[in-house]
This record gives sequence, structure tokens and C-alpha cells, in this order.
Amino acid sequence: MSIFFQTRNKALQAQLAASGLDGLLVTQLANWYYLTGFTGESGALVVGADERPTLVTDGRFTVQARQETSGVRVAVQKGGLLESVGQKLKEQRFRIVGFDPQHVSVAQMRALRKAAGPRVRCVPAAGLVESLRMKKDTSELVQMRSAALLASELEAHAAKFLRPGLREFEVAAEIEYKMRKAGASGPAFETIVASGPRAALPHARPTARRLRKNELVVLDLGAILGHYCSDITRTFYLGRAPARIRGWYRAVQEAQAAAVAAVKPGASCGEVDAAARNVLASQRLDKYFVHSTGHGLGIEVHEDPRVAKGQTRKLEPGNVVTIEPGVYFEGVGGIRIEDDVVVHAGRTEVLTRFTRDLIEI
Amino acid sequence: MSIFFQTRNKALQAQLAASGLDGLLVTQLANWYYLTGFTGESGALVVGADERPTLVTDGRFTVQARQETSGVRVAVQKGGLLESVGQKLKEQRFRIVGFDPQHVSVAQMRALRKAAGPRVRCVPAAGLVESLRMKKDTSELVQMRSAALLASELEAHAAKFLRPGLREFEVAAEIEYKMRKAGASGPAFETIVASGPRAALPHARPTARRLRKNELVVLDLGAILGHYCSDITRTFYLGRAPARIRGWYRAVQEAQAAAVAAVKPGASCGEVDAAARNVLASQRLDKYFVHSTGHGLGIEVHEDPRVAKGQTRKLEPGNVVTIEPGVYFEGVGGIRIEDDVVVHAGRTEVLTRFTRDLIEI
Repeated sequence: MSIFFQTRNKALQAQLAASGLDGLLVTQLANWYYLTGFTGESGALVVGADERPTLVTDGRFTVQARQETSGVRVAVQKGGLLESVGQKLKEQRFRIVGFDPQHVSVAQMRALRKAAGPRVRCVPAAGLVESLRMKKDTSELVQMRSAALLASELEAHAAKFLRPGLREFEVAAEIEYKMRKAGASGPAFETIVASGPRAALPHARPTARRLRKNELVVLDLGAILGHYCSDITRTFYLGRAPARIRGWYRAVQEAQAAAVAAVKPGASCGEVDAAARNVLASQRLDKYFVHSTGHGLGIEVHEDPRVAKGQTRKLEPGNVVTIEPGVYFEGVGGIRIEDDVVVHAGRTEVLTRFTRDLIEI
Repeated sequence: MSIFFQTRNKALQAQLAASGLDGLLVTQLANWYYLTGFTGESGALVVGADERPTLVTDGRFTVQARQETSGVRVAVQKGGLLESVGQKLKEQRFRIVGFDPQHVSVAQMRALRKAAGPRVRCVPAAGLVESLRMKKDTSELVQMRSAALLASELEAHAAKFLRPGLREFEVAAEIEYKMRKAGASGPAFETIVASGPRAALPHARPTARRLRKNELVVLDLGAILGHYCSDITRTFYLGRAPARIRGWYRAVQEAQAAAVAAVKPGASCGEVDAAARNVLASQRLDKYFVHSTGHGLGIEVHEDPRVAKGQTRKLEPGNVVTIEPGVYFEGVGGIRIEDDVVVHAGRTEVLTRFTRDLIEI
């Protein structure tokens, strides 16, 4: 097991001991990848006090599991997945095993309890691995820098090819094509290309609508590269933007810069959110900012910590968050600027690198 | 509510009555889309004896829900999703409500039971909507024909651009780009481009490996078009195939034709599987056929019925299944041929249309 996986497993074992658990059942791909490097789509990991966790997976993935991991016991699933896991818990004499109730189905829990027998107690224990994942190590930051640079290059590429007449889904197809050609395993989420009045919808899916002259286009994209996600948004104007739009844009730009400046160890997530919101409020635009300022980013595109109103969690070195305030005007359009930001002890590192000015085309 | 949605809801209500349920909780996108047309990513649908089902979703999706549905009560989620659903069940005085234990988490069930109170009984009831979805109506078949033709065109396109030197992921990127440009919302699954010895892995993910002269390439792809999936596989040879490979190919081709011919109302899925397997067995190749013959296809890329060994379920008009036998030789490569097939009363309709001969490039 590499030093990074060893460190992560040890940190988890310390958490288990502190929670009075002698084992943890890990049922999500992002979490077992983080702990072992296994990328198969089906399986479950059991972490105990023992140095070698047990990975149960089916015949389709066992060769892959052995290739991708080391220091892990790979067990071949017999019958249902949770049935096999329950048998392992029984054989290995676990007594109190945590599971994440949001990621285990009612049917899985029934199969698990039946196979594990009455001597194994399964108790809810949510978010243990997720809390470790918030603090990225150097191997993770290397991947995240590459993923963020790729996303930045795609915004720069868009600045060259966006033009009136293109359909929104053609723009998304072009972006995702370049992404894949650059080695990304895929987009981190469905690319958002929201033009004209559709730019007023923060979560718009690309449609057959054609881009038009004198309209805003919000382009929100991210790549999965080396198993880590990036997430960037830039806003374009097809033509020369009128004063009203420039004014809104400047307000969002100032709000975004204020929130990025507020990112530092010890600052609460709510304070970072407020930094953006207050700038918009000073220009009476806060009511058009209808979502949170940002979210954690890593193996998944939405992770802890949430950068939202009232969040008291304090930022720590190693956290990676998006900072993405925006304003949305029904029937008119929207503006959003988003970067990926790493918290370090003495400084803030912005991973995404492309102009934050309004891009007029 | 359109006539198709009405028919589906009535059929479901008949099933509820037969199962002694006065309501069903629908927690999967594919199922609520089938019953209402709502494409939002978060929500839950409650179907009762009443004509109008209740769709609970959060603020991000309520405008969309009202636009996409008719004859449906759209309720805005307050607090957690299942908490809101529980309150609706209580208000509407449901007594025995079915849920799918594979698609409700332990945490959701706890929230649901707490909010619904002691007068509502929640009982496991899996697969009710899925069993209706097996039988496609004419509106669904229209979409599936288009999705299958698009997939067929992409195989034809590949026959033109595949060449030694291309990387597997570049091929996948090109295919998915064309797919999106043609209006697909995305691939139905991660496109499989398995070249050389990697073609021996039925579920290979595209890598940076370059295609080489005198090797097999298995290209398995599908598009989501108008919310329905297609799924096709063709096998290419970069060069002139040697006699051994031609022999294997012919065997798979015969096996596939035999299974397609076996698809008819009243035939069991196991019989269709056996039709392919027996042809391969007659040439001592059955042990290299390491997966099932096929699966149902529709809103999801893997649905009921499963076309596998021993499956006793009988095919009915309206079923759509893939027929995809293959042979895999470790260290050498693999061959698979896959089509999408509709069961009709008097005939079989093959939706995918491109040569089934070995494509030498």
C-alpha cells in the first residue's frame, strides 16, 4: 500500500477507535477509491483495526481489484454483495460496524444483517471518510491542479469558437470532445451552456437553442482527470455589452474576488459566503444571487465543505472549494464567475487560470 | 396528462389494487419519468387510487416539473425529500404504501416513517413500474428506433475513421462528439473501445492504448436520444483477418443470428440465451462466451427482462432486448456482435442496422 493510502487508512482507524467502532463498511466508489485506489464500479470495503482492509467485489472486477490495490484483501463476492460482506463480518468477528445510512439501501441492510448474524451490530456512522477527504494531500493536489488547468484551457478554447448560430448542445459537445482528447475520463458534470434568457437558470441543461448576437452565455464546465474533478465558470457576451450588463458583471467580479480573498484557514464557510453576498447587497443585487457561494471539490464534484450561508465549519489547509457567486434575471440572462481554490497555511492557491473579466466576442 | 401517461398510470393503479396497496412511492428518475414525463434529477412521486399523482421536488425543479407534466400535483419539498413525502402520505391518509427497498436508503426510510406517522404502513414492493416498462408502447418505440439508428450510424462512421495509431479514448471521444452533435443528450454508457488483447475484456474502459495493425477492435456504444437508450456492438479488424479469427467471427455471427431468430412472443429468455450458446457449443467455443446473451433496453440501458441462462420469463410483444453474444480469448482479443430487437406479435424488428459481417479496415 502506498504511503498515501496508508496514511488515509490510519487516519480512518483513529476515527473508528474514537467512535467506538471496530469496523466501518464503505459502500461508495469515491470512498473506496480514496482508501484503496480501486476504481471498479461495484464492491464494498470493510476497514477494521487490522492493517489490511477487505474489498469484496464480483467476478467482473476481481482481476482489476488485484491490479489496482496493494495491502488489501480482495474477496470474490458469492451471492449478493451485502450477503458476502455480512459473511466476512461474521468470519472476521466484527462486533460493532458503522455504515452510512444514506448509502445503504433498505434491501442491502436486510441482506447484511441476515448474513452477519446476531453477534455483529451495525450502527449508523455517516461521513467518516468524507471528513478525511476534505483535507487533500499532496498527491491529490497534483491531480487537481492538472484537472483545473485543463478546464481553464477549455474556457480559453471557448473564447475562440463561440459565435452566434451555434447550438448550445454543439458547444457542450465540442468542450467535452476536447476534454476527452486531452485524456479526461469524462466531464465532472453535464456541461452547462446557457445562452440568452436561459442563462437565468443556474442549472440549465444544453438545448438546441442557437447562440445569438447581443446575448450572455454562461459556460460552466469541469473535467475528471486522474480521478479528480475540476469546475469552472466564465460568462461571455456575444457583442459589445451594454452598460447595465457591465455593471452587473463588475458586481459579480468584485463579489467573487472578495470571497476568494476571504478563503483562509480559520475562516468559517459562512463568512466566505457572506463576503460575496455583502458585495452584491451593497449594490442591491443580493436577491438575484439565488444559490450558495461554493462547494468542496475532489474525487466528487460536490463534496464537503459547503460554502453557504450560516455554515460554521472552519476552513483548514488542504480544503479545496469552488467560489462561484452569480446573479440571475428572469427573461434577461445571468452572470457567474467560478474558480477552484485551495486553502494553504500561509496563502490561497487559485487552481483555475483564465481571465475573470467579461469576455466579449 | 397525455394518453400514454394516463394508460401507464392506470396500469399501475390496477397493479396496486391487486397487491393490496393504496399507494406506491416512486423514488427513481426512470420510473417517475415513465409515469409523468418529469426529467428533474431530484424528487419522489406518490401514486394512489386518485387520478392525479403527487410529485414532490425541491425549489430548483418545481418550475420545470410544472412545465413538463400535466395532471400531476407538484408539491414543493420542505425540509428533507422523504420528510416531505411522509407528510404528504399522512395528509392524504394513505394506509399501505409500497416502496422499492433497493432504491430507498436506510436514512430515507427512517425520515419517511417519522414524518408519515404510525397510521401509514410502508411495505416493500419492488419492480412494479419496471414490469410495466418492459412492454414498450408506440410512443416509446418511435424514440427507440431513432436512438438505434443513430447508434448504427456511429458504427458506420467508425468504419470510416478507425485506423492504426488512434488511441482508444480518442475513438470514444469522436463517437460521443458525433452523438452529441446529432442531438443525443449523451452516451447511454461509457463507450467501449477495446483493442488488441484488451478486446478480451467485455467491460473494458477506453485507455491511451493506440490501435495497431492486425488487431481486433470491439466498439460497443449507445446513445440516449429523446430519453431512450440504444446499444450496439460491432467488431473490426485492422487489416486482413487470419483464418482463425474469421472462424471465431463466423461462429459468433451464427450464434447471434440464431438468438435473434429465437426472439418471439412466448419464447423464454433462457431459450433465447440457449440458442446463442448452443451454436457456440457446437464449435467448442461456449466456454469463451463469459456473459449473458442480452438485456432489456429502454429508459435505462439495463432493464428487465434479462436474456440469460435459465431465465424462465417469457417474451411478450413490446419487449425490447439486446442480443449480444461474444467470445473472449485472454491475451488475444475478443469478438462481439450486438443488436437491439423488438418483440412483435407476428414478427421481430431489429432496430440497429449496420452490416453484421466482420469489418476489415
